[in-house]
Amino acid sequence: MAYRETEKMRNRKAEARKRIIECAHECVAGGGFRSAQITRVAACAGVATGTIYRHFESKEDLFAEIFRLATQQEVDRVAAALAIEGDAITRLETALRQFADRALRGPVMAWSLIAEPVDPKVEEERLKFRRAYAELFEQAIREGIEEASLPHQDARQSSTCLVGAIAESLVGPLSPAQTGNADQPDNNDHDPLVDSIICFCMQGLTGTRR
Amino acid sequence: MAYRETEKMRNRKAEARKRIIECAHECVAGGGFRSAQITRVAACAGVATGTIYRHFESKEDLFAEIFRLATQQEVDRVAAALAIEGDAITRLETALRQFADRALRGPVMAWSLIAEPVDPKVEEERLKFRRAYAELFEQAIREGIEEASLPHQDARQSSTCLVGAIAESLVGPLSPAQTGNADQPDNNDHDPLVDSIICFCMQGLTGTRR
Repeated sequence: MAYRETEKMRNRKAEARKRIIECAHECVAGGGFRSAQITRVAACAGVATGTIYRHFESKEDLFAEIFRLATQQEVDRVAAALAIEGDAITRLETALRQFADRALRGPVMAWSLIAEPVDPKVEEERLKFRRAYAELFEQAIREGIEEASLPHQDARQSSTCLVGAIAESLVGPLSPAQTGNADQPDNNDHDPLVDSIICFCMQGLTGTRR
Repeated sequence: MAYRETEKMRNRKAEARKRIIECAHECVAGGGFRSAQITRVAACAGVATGTIYRHFESKEDLFAEIFRLATQQEVDRVAAALAIEGDAITRLETALRQFADRALRGPVMAWSLIAEPVDPKVEEERLKFRRAYAELFEQAIREGIEEASLPHQDARQSSTCLVGAIAESLVGPLSPAQTGNADQPDNNDHDPLVDSIICFCMQGLTGTRR
């Protein structure tokens, strides 16, 4: 009986944690980390603010967790796009284009993950995850060099150039000043914007005019 | 007499502020923002810690000021490099190469300015200064398109790709894990590293294999 009670409590605790994370994620997606105040997250999750601090040491730890979970999803999607059939050029272009498209369709969340000034803990995560993206690109570039679809190059350096180019070129278009109200559906045509980013990146990799 | 006194006090205050900034800059150059503790800056400047807070509202404000002053110098150098004689390709390549060389010769300061996880106030400045770099590159790219040394492209997007590519590709090589002890003079040959970054950037701009 005591054992069952413990399991029930554990489940309940896990449920509460899950709900807190979901609500914090929703707040960030709606208005950035800035709008994910603990009182707001608590109200949304239907818990006391003190409960949040039983699950996360600080607001910064909660933010870092939200960042990790959301960014890992993006990294997984890039990995999936790089795993399709085709030569490295096709796979890299697909992965970069999908990344940019996704970001521009969910600009508030993307801005928060890529550029919103937050907290050193989130910054530390950003550095780690940028390495994760770069490692995926690096592998694909190596394969491209091996299959001769890409010219010889320093795959590691090129991969970090790719990560920097795509992230930085999205900062302006994603910034709140640019995208305006988070509640408005984004019906803009992003194709020319994405095309020009992809053009720079693929020319950088291939040295061939597009 | 009262007026002279005031002027003397004003000068003394300006002197103290200047010394605080110089000492904080030295600390950052030696071990990053992390090592620029207020007590340390105060000791170096020969003032009480309270004096620092008479000049800067908070440590974050002092850090933001150090960041602005140091980064403005870099922006000015990029502007100077872009103002030399020659076509846009030559000027852009010179500016990018000098930027990377300078960063790698002063890796601790460069890492702090480009990537050290610090504080939202410094992050805000980073976003602003990245726009300042991008605007300089954008102007040069426009001139290159006009003089037909560069192919037609979205100059604004290409400029942000450049800023992102060069900054991100330096993060790894500049990171403390890579550069080790700040006190050791850096005698490494950075040419291959810089060459590969410049190669990606210039190919991205020109679409021509290098």
